[in-house]
Amino acid sequence: MDSAVVLALAREQGFACHALSVSYGQRHTSELAAAAELARVQGAVEHKVVTVDLRSIGGSALTADIDVPETAGQGIPVTYVPARNTIMLSIALGWAEVLGADDLFCGVNAVDYSGYPDCRPEFIAAFERLANLATKAGVEGHSLRVHAPLMRLGKADIAREGARLGVDFSRTVSCYQADAEGRACGRCDACRLRAEGFAAAGLADPTRYAPRG
Amino acid sequence: MDSAVVLALAREQGFACHALSVSYGQRHTSELAAAAELARVQGAVEHKVVTVDLRSIGGSALTADIDVPETAGQGIPVTYVPARNTIMLSIALGWAEVLGADDLFCGVNAVDYSGYPDCRPEFIAAFERLANLATKAGVEGHSLRVHAPLMRLGKADIAREGARLGVDFSRTVSCYQADAEGRACGRCDACRLRAEGFAAAGLADPTRYAPRG
Repeated sequence: MDSAVVLALAREQGFACHALSVSYGQRHTSELAAAAELARVQGAVEHKVVTVDLRSIGGSALTADIDVPETAGQGIPVTYVPARNTIMLSIALGWAEVLGADDLFCGVNAVDYSGYPDCRPEFIAAFERLANLATKAGVEGHSLRVHAPLMRLGKADIAREGARLGVDFSRTVSCYQADAEGRACGRCDACRLRAEGFAAAGLADPTRYAPRG
Repeated sequence: MDSAVVLALAREQGFACHALSVSYGQRHTSELAAAAELARVQGAVEHKVVTVDLRSIGGSALTADIDVPETAGQGIPVTYVPARNTIMLSIALGWAEVLGADDLFCGVNAVDYSGYPDCRPEFIAAFERLANLATKAGVEGHSLRVHAPLMRLGKADIAREGARLGVDFSRTVSCYQADAEGRACGRCDACRLRAEGFAAAGLADPTRYAPRG
């Protein structure tokens, strides 16, 4: 949901978009097929999947044999994947450098989120600073920018923005344990935040839910 | 060479070391087998290889069909792998968080190096800052440190440190195009810097070189 809205915003601003998904061993691999399809219908130049095996380090309900919780808890939840956004942005940074692109977009969000440390504005600012030291940009005299246009938006605002931009939310997969067809569980944190967002925006929820077992 | 000396330094300081190698699609995969063996003989608790497919983004002589140069050129050479050290440190950061480790060690070096932007002290400082924002550390009230003990050492100093610490340099692979047995070409930038380091330190060069074709 967030990624699709970010892509639509970047397209609206006139960017030629090279869309990246990371196959990191997440449970919900159907999000990768959904991303490829959304990139196509939303006019990305291309969509690439880069593989990094985060199952080999584990430590998260998304990448190890730990159940996805279906009630909200306290603190940083077990769905947090250690350093995931740092790793994904780093791969995006490498690809941007190969492409000669100076603008990176990501869908992190610090309002209706799950308390992950790598979704905060200070994280994005620190990554942008790192990106300019890590690559040829500084040497070549240009700057990389990391855009996180959803940072200050709640899920309802994101739903509204997506509706304004014509994003087909029925194609997006947010659920942490979506089935092979991309149908949502309706019970995890990601499902809960998403459904609340549509409700608060006064929009019908187009999510495809799996039949309850 | 650099990684083996860093491991020896960290062991000397009393750290229990969990050694990480990254299989990123590099030409010289024999460095991974060498790393596993060095981790074992140098007393690491474990050695892990995490895979990330940087061939899918390419852009370097190490990860695409670009020849490794055998003469030193100007500027950042084609052996530079875009964002490689950022990606490798990010994976190390994720694993450290899973382990509950606060100390990351890496072998980057800004003296006798190839001009890569992600080998500079300001890069390491920026990564350390990012690491503390990206993870639970800040929330939990402890700090991560990124150690780069070779940063200010020349290759001769590194060779001397390794000799002092008993590192078996005959087992280390530096060559960008080492053969399947880990034997060095003797002609690439990495070979040249390494050979000059041993010579300047007054040490015999224990590198196993491939027969010239």
